[in-house]
Amino acid sequence: MSTAWTSRYAQRTKNVRSSAIRELLKITQRPEIISFAGGLPAPDVFPVERFREACRKVLENHGEQALQYGPSEGYEPLREMIARHTSRYGIEAEPQHVLITSGSQQALDLIGKLLINSGDRVLVEAPTYLGALQAFSVYGAEYVSVPSDNDGLRTDLLEEPLRSGPKFMYVLPNFQNPGGTTLAEGRRHELVLLADRYGIPIVEDDPYGQLRYEGEHLTPLVVLDRENLRRDNGYSIGNVLYLSTFSKTLSPGLRLGWIVAPPEVITKLVQLKQGADLHTSTFGQMVAYEVARDGFLDEHIKLIRRVYGERRDVMLQALQEFCPPEVTWTRPLGGLFLWVTLPVGMDCHCLFDAALKQNVAFVAGDCFYGGNGCDVEGMRHLRLNFSNAKPDQIREGIRRLAVAIKDQLAGLRPEPVAT
Amino acid sequence: MSTAWTSRYAQRTKNVRSSAIRELLKITQRPEIISFAGGLPAPDVFPVERFREACRKVLENHGEQALQYGPSEGYEPLREMIARHTSRYGIEAEPQHVLITSGSQQALDLIGKLLINSGDRVLVEAPTYLGALQAFSVYGAEYVSVPSDNDGLRTDLLEEPLRSGPKFMYVLPNFQNPGGTTLAEGRRHELVLLADRYGIPIVEDDPYGQLRYEGEHLTPLVVLDRENLRRDNGYSIGNVLYLSTFSKTLSPGLRLGWIVAPPEVITKLVQLKQGADLHTSTFGQMVAYEVARDGFLDEHIKLIRRVYGERRDVMLQALQEFCPPEVTWTRPLGGLFLWVTLPVGMDCHCLFDAALKQNVAFVAGDCFYGGNGCDVEGMRHLRLNFSNAKPDQIREGIRRLAVAIKDQLAGLRPEPVAT
Repeated sequence: MSTAWTSRYAQRTKNVRSSAIRELLKITQRPEIISFAGGLPAPDVFPVERFREACRKVLENHGEQALQYGPSEGYEPLREMIARHTSRYGIEAEPQHVLITSGSQQALDLIGKLLINSGDRVLVEAPTYLGALQAFSVYGAEYVSVPSDNDGLRTDLLEEPLRSGPKFMYVLPNFQNPGGTTLAEGRRHELVLLADRYGIPIVEDDPYGQLRYEGEHLTPLVVLDRENLRRDNGYSIGNVLYLSTFSKTLSPGLRLGWIVAPPEVITKLVQLKQGADLHTSTFGQMVAYEVARDGFLDEHIKLIRRVYGERRDVMLQALQEFCPPEVTWTRPLGGLFLWVTLPVGMDCHCLFDAALKQNVAFVAGDCFYGGNGCDVEGMRHLRLNFSNAKPDQIREGIRRLAVAIKDQLAGLRPEPVAT
Repeated sequence: MSTAWTSRYAQRTKNVRSSAIRELLKITQRPEIISFAGGLPAPDVFPVERFREACRKVLENHGEQALQYGPSEGYEPLREMIARHTSRYGIEAEPQHVLITSGSQQALDLIGKLLINSGDRVLVEAPTYLGALQAFSVYGAEYVSVPSDNDGLRTDLLEEPLRSGPKFMYVLPNFQNPGGTTLAEGRRHELVLLADRYGIPIVEDDPYGQLRYEGEHLTPLVVLDRENLRRDNGYSIGNVLYLSTFSKTLSPGLRLGWIVAPPEVITKLVQLKQGADLHTSTFGQMVAYEVARDGFLDEHIKLIRRVYGERRDVMLQALQEFCPPEVTWTRPLGGLFLWVTLPVGMDCHCLFDAALKQNVAFVAGDCFYGGNGCDVEGMRHLRLNFSNAKPDQIREGIRRLAVAIKDQLAGLRPEPVAT
């Protein structure tokens, strides 16, 4: 009676596309494959021993609390810690500005639930994070895509799309997924001013902000927004919702993210969270707090920066060494990804098949665009992850990828005419 | 600029009501209060030591896996275990029929997302679980309420509401929240036959099924449904989605629930789960598996049955001893709650204020009805939880409650005319 179920599905499931990446990951788990496809942190830097000690302490000292229901807003000491850490970057958050979510992905889902009516437009970068498109599309979002370049979102192209009245903008300013690009300082100011002028809120997604391998930290949009507010003195609460996560610094398996937002937005989000999953695991939150406290998180992030920074360098060097000159790529200052541009006429899906034969995998670029999930522009791109594989695998993987690229490239060139 | 945000909220937030219970719990946390308000398990029976050992094992043997991203469907050994346990009751589940959710609450949210278009009717018991109303209302559900009595949902009143074409029925057959009632065997058959005749799916929520303190386990609706399917031979997949959870048997703080459903419904739900939170905590799932395995869960449930069964008896006896004869209550065969009916003319909210002065708390009955969150019928009821407080507190709490009831009752009686 499969049709009986099919006919019952709500309209919002029409927009659902399964994550191409998560399906792909199943294919690329074969041990002989070097995968640059996922966005997985390096498991070899997980602080397993610290987690074990934290679990022991939490269960020994607060066992009954850790296994019991907790508040929907999150575990108070963790909210305080996040507010304190966030404030170091000038965001001036208090615990009541922080909602703990079940990973950043839930933050995106709750924001979609709160803000999107079917048919509403959401302004996104092209390319942008696939998981955000998945979360928003369920609520019937349509997309206005604005191109980006090496300095991030092209703010010079923003006014026209903003005039079309999107419900909000979704932006990843630091080491963007998938582009690896960082929004330049000047553009940050322009973006916030334009958002303010047109009254369009910004969702600032910052999962990688602390993983910077060179250069100076740039001011988050939420801070620039509040500076404007203070100057104008006309607003009581900000225009930016700021998201981050422990997935890239401590552990993605815990599913712990957060939203920093004005209290009245937090109140609404808490109500939605109650209906969505009551609250995030009490035990997981208490363990994360116990792991992160007393300066451990800061020290651990230094280690991650060193490890991932080296892997990025190895990948950049291998690309330079093995790839034909027609291929270009971004040079990320942090994060987990870089973005490759193939020569005109080459197709990332054909390359994917060829690369799999060489036992190397990546994500085809076309799934990172708003719209119907396929994008002609995206067909010339690939996303490569450099955090998960070890340096010697990265070098070998890029060598294999270059072989596949050269093969494809040879196929593109006109056959020499026999003379 | 609070109006700027308010004007941006999507239509679906209009239907959001904050959980009366969760707000209430904040009031009732004062130490002098004996609270029968929450649905909290007894923390003194949490198997803390077993959890500590499980965490140690998981991190020692599978640390990298436990802290890494995992599949959206859930941790495979846990899905297998749940399928195996479920099959003991004749449900014949395979792992591919099981989706792990972040608590049963997320199961309700995903089902709402999958099935409800704004304005769709959902058939519910009156009274029913508040959290389900919260989850479904976000998607614009409207409710068709069918009364229940001591034998559960009044199936003799079902045909007319079914003819009105609800999208699905939501039913708690065992030790219902808030009523404490159990759907009688004969009515189970009727319900499944009617659902089949009218082509209306059933969402069978069974968080308490294993917590039976007397009598024999009754056949789940999902099993009766499949028996019909086999007989008719006309359907390939079932009409019932079955939900359960570890929240009442192991720990609610872990947020671990599950849906058992036909594979094609699971596929859709997995896609929605990807967008909602990617997956449930890998670490939490692995720890729960390690705690539950090797027969521990079964043994532990025996302990819970003994402890909660005693608390139920103490509450029933104290009600008998202290309450005036105008007050009646259900006599649950299991679960966490019983349902009190007050004399005509009495108002549970006035009683709540009076009870708080006596330092005892409960949940007013009117929030457990579909509709606008208030229900005249509900004003004569209270929900009492008997799992969380210890026996001597239960006895003392009911004594205090009876004082408040008698005071209210005295106020209702006409003043004696002076002669």
